[in-house]
Parts: sequence; structure tokens; C-alpha cells
Amino acid sequence: MRDILPPEAARRRRLARRLLDHFALHGYELVTPPAFELADVLERGLGTLDPRDVLRFVEPESGEVAALRPDVTPQIARIAATRLADRPLPMRLCYEGTVLRRRQERARKHRQIPQAGVELLGVAGPEGDLELLSLAVGSARAAGLSDFVLDLGHADIARAMMNGVPSALASAILDALAHKDVAVVGDLVKDAKLAPPLATAFRALPKLHGDGDVWKEAERVLAPTPAASALRALRDLWDRAIGAGLEVVMRVDLGEVRGFAYYTGALFHLLADGPGEPFGSGGRYDDLLARFDTPMPAAGFGLDLDNLAWSLRLAGKEEGLDARVLVGPAAKVPALCAALRDLGVGCVAAPPGDAEAYARAWSFSHVFREAAGGKFELFSLATEKAEPLEALPAADLAAKIAKVMLG
Amino acid sequence: MRDILPPEAARRRRLARRLLDHFALHGYELVTPPAFELADVLERGLGTLDPRDVLRFVEPESGEVAALRPDVTPQIARIAATRLADRPLPMRLCYEGTVLRRRQERARKHRQIPQAGVELLGVAGPEGDLELLSLAVGSARAAGLSDFVLDLGHADIARAMMNGVPSALASAILDALAHKDVAVVGDLVKDAKLAPPLATAFRALPKLHGDGDVWKEAERVLAPTPAASALRALRDLWDRAIGAGLEVVMRVDLGEVRGFAYYTGALFHLLADGPGEPFGSGGRYDDLLARFDTPMPAAGFGLDLDNLAWSLRLAGKEEGLDARVLVGPAAKVPALCAALRDLGVGCVAAPPGDAEAYARAWSFSHVFREAAGGKFELFSLATEKAEPLEALPAADLAAKIAKVMLG
Repeated sequence: MRDILPPEAARRRRLARRLLDHFALHGYELVTPPAFELADVLERGLGTLDPRDVLRFVEPESGEVAALRPDVTPQIARIAATRLADRPLPMRLCYEGTVLRRRQERARKHRQIPQAGVELLGVAGPEGDLELLSLAVGSARAAGLSDFVLDLGHADIARAMMNGVPSALASAILDALAHKDVAVVGDLVKDAKLAPPLATAFRALPKLHGDGDVWKEAERVLAPTPAASALRALRDLWDRAIGAGLEVVMRVDLGEVRGFAYYTGALFHLLADGPGEPFGSGGRYDDLLARFDTPMPAAGFGLDLDNLAWSLRLAGKEEGLDARVLVGPAAKVPALCAALRDLGVGCVAAPPGDAEAYARAWSFSHVFREAAGGKFELFSLATEKAEPLEALPAADLAAKIAKVMLG
Repeated sequence: MRDILPPEAARRRRLARRLLDHFALHGYELVTPPAFELADVLERGLGTLDPRDVLRFVEPESGEVAALRPDVTPQIARIAATRLADRPLPMRLCYEGTVLRRRQERARKHRQIPQAGVELLGVAGPEGDLELLSLAVGSARAAGLSDFVLDLGHADIARAMMNGVPSALASAILDALAHKDVAVVGDLVKDAKLAPPLATAFRALPKLHGDGDVWKEAERVLAPTPAASALRALRDLWDRAIGAGLEVVMRVDLGEVRGFAYYTGALFHLLADGPGEPFGSGGRYDDLLARFDTPMPAAGFGLDLDNLAWSLRLAGKEEGLDARVLVGPAAKVPALCAALRDLGVGCVAAPPGDAEAYARAWSFSHVFREAAGGKFELFSLATEKAEPLEALPAADLAAKIAKVMLG
């Protein structure tokens, strides 16, 4: 369980607002599924749920098992396949909400992750993928981040290479790839006596990661393997993304296997300094809607607002707070506060005691208070400077205060 | 479980945004507790939880019982008593989120209620009560509602009268009062042979409901009973509220016993046409924080966004949607959509097929499309009229479209 306190909660909400506004600009409409979902629906989306991974409960009325969602996408798939089934394709949907995941680093600890994301249903292949890549990059920029990268991979590269590899070996290789452990991949491949082109390709995968220079080596190594066609598809998407102006943030990561079981095509992760894990992930999952008896191509991405906020803070681009003023002398309060609110300035009467300490504890930006000689002043907590103000009628005083505070 | 679909989800979010902005203007800072909470915390706030009333689950890591919250207030109390305990009083906190309640009319059905609310901690008595009454009325107005009433009551009126009445009889009377069942109240009082002033007062309670004219009769009937002092306190609050300009919406309801077990002082309900139950409720619960070992006065209210939206819709004041345009000829799309988004206009490329039907199904306000003679037009789905547009460079065309759409 986790609380978001003032003023962090306001910053978080502003960040979510900014992202949803950006999604809306691109035609993505908000849908709000409940925070819990039938386990059956979640399992159709995610495969078998490990009971230790999700918090489950039994609905007393129906006896059905529900769980706090570890992912919103299966819910969107359910909604698209049922309540929105009669609407024309494509569907552009977005959401904001909390998911509950087990922390990877601590076996039994759950983490509540506030997310915002989009789903694009009914647009196949590179056209849909490119729209999502652009939107993901645009969203990070709309949030205020300029220094980040998008790692692009493809689920079918590793999957095609695994085809025919015994499943125990395949899962050991996957695990080593997930950790980009070149040595372990090499040992596994050697012990299994895989044929040279495949063995070489597996060994190369963890290193096929970087900027566009990677393509040359990737094409050389993967051309003689079953991954060749997925590689061509990914290269096509890469070229389109470069054409769309995304070069500056794009990297390729052919050994990326996170979300391997989930995705069916291009997949990507957004990374920036700070959290040490992606602040966003997405890709194509064309099989998902078929599990809800409505086959259609689908892709999407989700942004982890905690991680995004972390990177923003580190980059000095944290969401700001609205200017708010604590209003001092009690006799002034009713008229002045009313006039300030009419001008859109948040304000509260100062409680008895140390107004400045109170203002600081509760993230006020300014304190309005009496000064010498029957005058007043507007003290800024950020600059520690006071702006002198004449004793004027409330409306005039409010207008002057609003001008200083809102600029 | 309940989904909110497009375009309803966007309207609902706009409504929440409007309310939170209003709360912020009055200095209430957002706090975001999790959607589930330890059952122990909820029980401290609400008394024993009937297992049928809440959805519970066991946290695998701790073995502790958690529940999907039926009320946010106990969570705010927990936070105020722990993580915010070192901040100076008063605390002005607001929240938005979903609570889960059992429907009254159907024994085993739960209802997810999206709520927005405030808590004012550390301000006792009529000063705090008046701030909340004003804020509740202001919030309903900020949401766009003009025709509504605020029913004001006081938990200690019925409570003081119950003092000394056998508990079985007291709960039967409470139940009859909750239904404003004058006949049953009369019978119960008669059978119990209560003394005349109390018997008369109980019989009168369900009828002491209406505008300020009620006070005269209320004072006559309740003066000789143990409710006299609560009545004086409520009359004082009423007079202050009238002085603060709330007369037009205020009604008094001395027989109001909803939330009886919870509140310790003034309590109120906000009502408007439509839902048949309050769209908002609040009051004073000065005992609550003591249950978290931090005694302090506290009061608050919560607004039921479903019920509020219902009343707004009925009053023709439903939240609007952003204007959005479906952009027609494919060759125009990339440049024109980019230019439109720069101007803050949401847009999407029209899919193949019937653009107008697509636009209608997905709540677009406009369609941009080719017209005769190499020209274009902007078709409004609301007016079914088309604005002719010359073939211009994308930036100029976007500026003209934005002007028509945004005014």
C-alpha cells in the first residue's frame, strides 16, 4: 500500500493530465476500466497468473475470482471485444490508473504503479507501430523530458530463433538474454551444439544493441537464420521512424526479450536517467484480441508515472505547482480571498501562529501579510523577497497580488 | 465491475478536474491513498465492516486482510495521523477516487462510486462547518449545477433524544426516522410510553424538514428535550450560513439520521433532480482522529460523481467534449494533423470507408474532407453544416479550421 502525499499527489496528477491531453490531441479517447478484474480476463491477456503475483479476492455475490489488475491492456481488450464491438475500427483508446505488480527485486512485495497508456486496435503492421512510436516519443516530450532513448526490438527475432530449440534450453537462453549475459549465452549455445549460423546469431544477440550502426552487423549475422524476416520487418519500421524524425531518440536492441511472451511484433522500451528501468514499454500483440473472440491487430504502450516523474525530477523538469497564497490579517481574509479566487488564485486564511512555517509545510508559494505603517506585503517563499502593497480595496489588492503571482 | 466508456469517461474526468480545481482554489491539497486498505483501518473509521459489504483479500506477503475501500475518509484519517502528523494544523486535503459499496436496494450487488471530496482537519465547530458548507455549495456550482438544495441536520439531535431510550427501541425509531415514516414513529413512541416532551419531539422530527420556517416549530418542540443544545448549535450554523449567502439552497432536516453512527455534529446532504439520492454528503466527525491516536476536530464531504453527472445531464449542464476533427484526404493528413495539433486541436486521419459514420461513432465534432472543384470543407456533426475551405498550405488551413472549431 502506498499513499501519495501533498504536494507530490498534485504533481503526479498534473503529469497524468498532461499525458492524457497529449493522447487526446492524437485522437485517443479515455476509457476507465475498474481497478480489479475477473482473473479469467487477466489470464487471457497475460497467460497463467502466478497466485503470488496478483492480489485476488472472491466476489461474494458471484463467487467469481477477481484480482487487482497487474496490467490494463487485457481489460481494454475485453472492452473492445464486448462493449465497443459495434464501433468502427480503428479504435484509439487511452487510460490512466494504477496497476499492482510484484517487485522483481523482492519476492513478495507488491508495487502500485500509476500508469497512463494507449491502445491502438485495428491498425496492422508498421503503420500502426509507427503511430505508437511517434506518440510514445511525443508523450515523453509533452511531459517535459528531452533526454531519453527508445530501444526498439522485435519479439519474433528471438522467437524465430528459438523455434526448434528444446524448450528447457530456450528458456535458459531467454533468461541469459534478459540479463544480456554474453558469457552464459555462449556457454549454453556451445553445450547444446547448435548449428553455426544459429549459434553465432544467439551469441551476437546481446551485443546487437545501439544506434543505427548495429544494422549492418545484425543483417550479416541474422540473414542465414529464421529471424531474417522479422529483422527485415523491424528494419522497415526503423527506416520509417527515422523518416518521421525520431532518429535522435531511437536505438535498436535485438536481444530485447522483456515482454517476449506477450508481444508478437515490434516492441520498445523508453529509458532515461534515474529509475534504472524503463519509464515506458509497448509493442504489438496481434494475438490478444483473438483470445476475446474478436481477432484484430493491436498494439499499445504504457508509461510508468513513477519512473517518468523520477527522470523528470532528475532532469530538473519536475511538474510545477500552482501558486497559492496564505492570507494574513484576519479582517482582510473574507473579501480578499473571494476576490483572489475569482481571479483563479488559490488561497487560504493564515492560521494563528507562524504563517511562514505553515506556508512552507503546505507548499504555499506566497504569504500575504501586514507590513509596517498600515501597509501590506506579498512574501515569496521561493525568492524570500517581499513585494510591498498599499492598503487598497480587496478587488484592487487581489488584482495586484494575482499579477505578481501569475505573472 | 463497471467500465466507463468513451465519451462518458472523458466527461467524467473533466467533471473531476473541475471539482479538484475548485478545491485547490480553496487551498485543499490532493492526497492519493490506494484503492484498497487494511481492514483494520477501515473498521476504525466505519465501525465493524459486514463481510458482505466489502470485498476483502489477504495480502500474501503480510497475511493481513485488506479491503477495497467503501470510504476514503478513514484512509485520510490514517494519513493525517501518521505521515502528515508533523505538519501544522489545520490540514486541508482533497481526494478523488473510486469507492466500492453494496447497493442498498440489492442485497449482494456492489457499486463502484467515483468520488471527489475534501477533509478539513483541526478546525472545530461552526467555523469549520461553515467553510465546508460554502465549499460544498461552491463545488456544485463550479460543476455547473444551479438547481440543488443542501439539507442541514445535526447528529446530536436524534442522538441526545435517544439517550436513555432502550437500544432496541432506539434502533427501531432510527429506522423509522430514516424512512421519514411518521406513523411508525408515532406507534413506537406510544407503545414505549415515552414521556410527553420526548414523545412529542420524536413524533415531530420527521416533519421538521424544510426551509427556515421550520425553526420556530423546532425550537418549540425540542426546547424541553435533551436535543436543545444541539438544536442551538445548528441554529447558530444556519444563521452563519444565511449570512454567508447560502440561503437560496439551504434547507433544514432535523429528522435526518443517515450517517448517524458516523457524524458527531452538523451533517448535510446535497440533493438535485435525477438520482433520487444525495449527490453529496458530509459533516463533522470529531471522534474519528482519536481512533488513530491523534485526537483533533475533523469534518468533510464527498461528492458522488455518478449522481452529480446524472443531475447535470438532466439540467442540460453535462460536461462538454473537446472539439475533434477527423481529417479526410490521406495526402493532406500528415502535415495538416501536425499543424492542427500544434494549435491544440485533436485530430485523427479518417479511416477508409464512411468517415461521417466513423466520426459519429467516436464522438468527433467535425470532419475535414474534400469538396467539389479541388476545394475542401469542414463538416460539423452537430449542425450538419459544412464550412467551405480553399486549398491552402497546411498551416493556413489548420489556422482556419482551428478558428471555426475553437471559436
